[in-house]
Amino acid sequence: MIPVNNPSTVPLLMEGRRQQILDGADAYFTLHGFRPTTMSQATADCGASEEEIFSVFASLDLLTEAVVDRRHLVWMGRVQDCCDKFDASHDKVLSIFGFLERWFAEEAYKTTVFSTVYTSLGIDNPWVLQMAARHVKAFTTMVEDLAVSGGLPRSLGTSIAILAEGAQVTAALTTDPSPAREARTAAAMLIAVYQTDLDVIHF
Amino acid sequence: MIPVNNPSTVPLLMEGRRQQILDGADAYFTLHGFRPTTMSQATADCGASEEEIFSVFASLDLLTEAVVDRRHLVWMGRVQDCCDKFDASHDKVLSIFGFLERWFAEEAYKTTVFSTVYTSLGIDNPWVLQMAARHVKAFTTMVEDLAVSGGLPRSLGTSIAILAEGAQVTAALTTDPSPAREARTAAAMLIAVYQTDLDVIHF
Repeated sequence: MIPVNNPSTVPLLMEGRRQQILDGADAYFTLHGFRPTTMSQATADCGASEEEIFSVFASLDLLTEAVVDRRHLVWMGRVQDCCDKFDASHDKVLSIFGFLERWFAEEAYKTTVFSTVYTSLGIDNPWVLQMAARHVKAFTTMVEDLAVSGGLPRSLGTSIAILAEGAQVTAALTTDPSPAREARTAAAMLIAVYQTDLDVIHF
Repeated sequence: MIPVNNPSTVPLLMEGRRQQILDGADAYFTLHGFRPTTMSQATADCGASEEEIFSVFASLDLLTEAVVDRRHLVWMGRVQDCCDKFDASHDKVLSIFGFLERWFAEEAYKTTVFSTVYTSLGIDNPWVLQMAARHVKAFTTMVEDLAVSGGLPRSLGTSIAILAEGAQVTAALTTDPSPAREARTAAAMLIAVYQTDLDVIHF
């Protein structure tokens, strides 16, 4: 198990350097995929010296984890931004599928989807699996909390998170964004089972 | 694009040799994962000469595709066997999630799940993506046909297939088989929306 990178413990000056290195490594992984590589390859274009890099990230695994963790946080932020546009919890939940549909249409989708990233890094590595589980659990908990705050059972949130994961993998494997809409319809139907005021549900 | 291996065009004597080579390569991939390799590594223990191997599989890509294709057929056969134990279409559909739960509990699950196999082979390779799409579409069509034969909308089958894909990726990333049950419950609820005879649905 490797320790989780915790930006809050990093001094401000070093934080700037940290983001600069992360930007360089993120650009490298975007171009080459999350494949076995070396620290010098992943940081070749970040503009920091080897000494500076190793003072911030003691290993390639720690750097890689920080890149993926930042992507996870950015992604969760995008999901949250979509949800924030709506007041009703069930509208927030359904808006996630609208976000997914737009995300699936992005050029790099099939190589940036998290399941692909984790698998490319080697899902049999304990630290990768730990990171994958953290990502899935954070997203699932977010949807479950939305369900509960809308008066729906927590387990309904779990099911809807599974639909969102299924849409992501299906879209990645078929290069077709339509699973987002199909999953959205199913999510709306599941919510409707618990709603008496059916006219607020937009299938 | 590479041509699809078509066993029906292979003479009987060669078919035995073909299966022997596939067995050896399948065992190799099970042990080492679907990572970049060579023909001689993948066929080292199959008991056939290099000449015999190349007479059946002209390239490593063709051999790999045949291994994954056979796995797909075996997997679809296992799903079909579960479905065949039931008469009612909706019971057949729900039995798929029982199969998934047992599959998730198998030791090698997280490295044998198809999304992992395709990603490991490089989902950015057109022939891998073609194979991945073929797998997802075959499974989705199977579930859609079951839905239709049970008087349910085809789109409900699509949604239930997405739930099954979501359960697979969630189970793989969290090493927890419970998404199978959560997806099953959601599938049963979706079917129930269209059923008047609710007492035949087993949540």
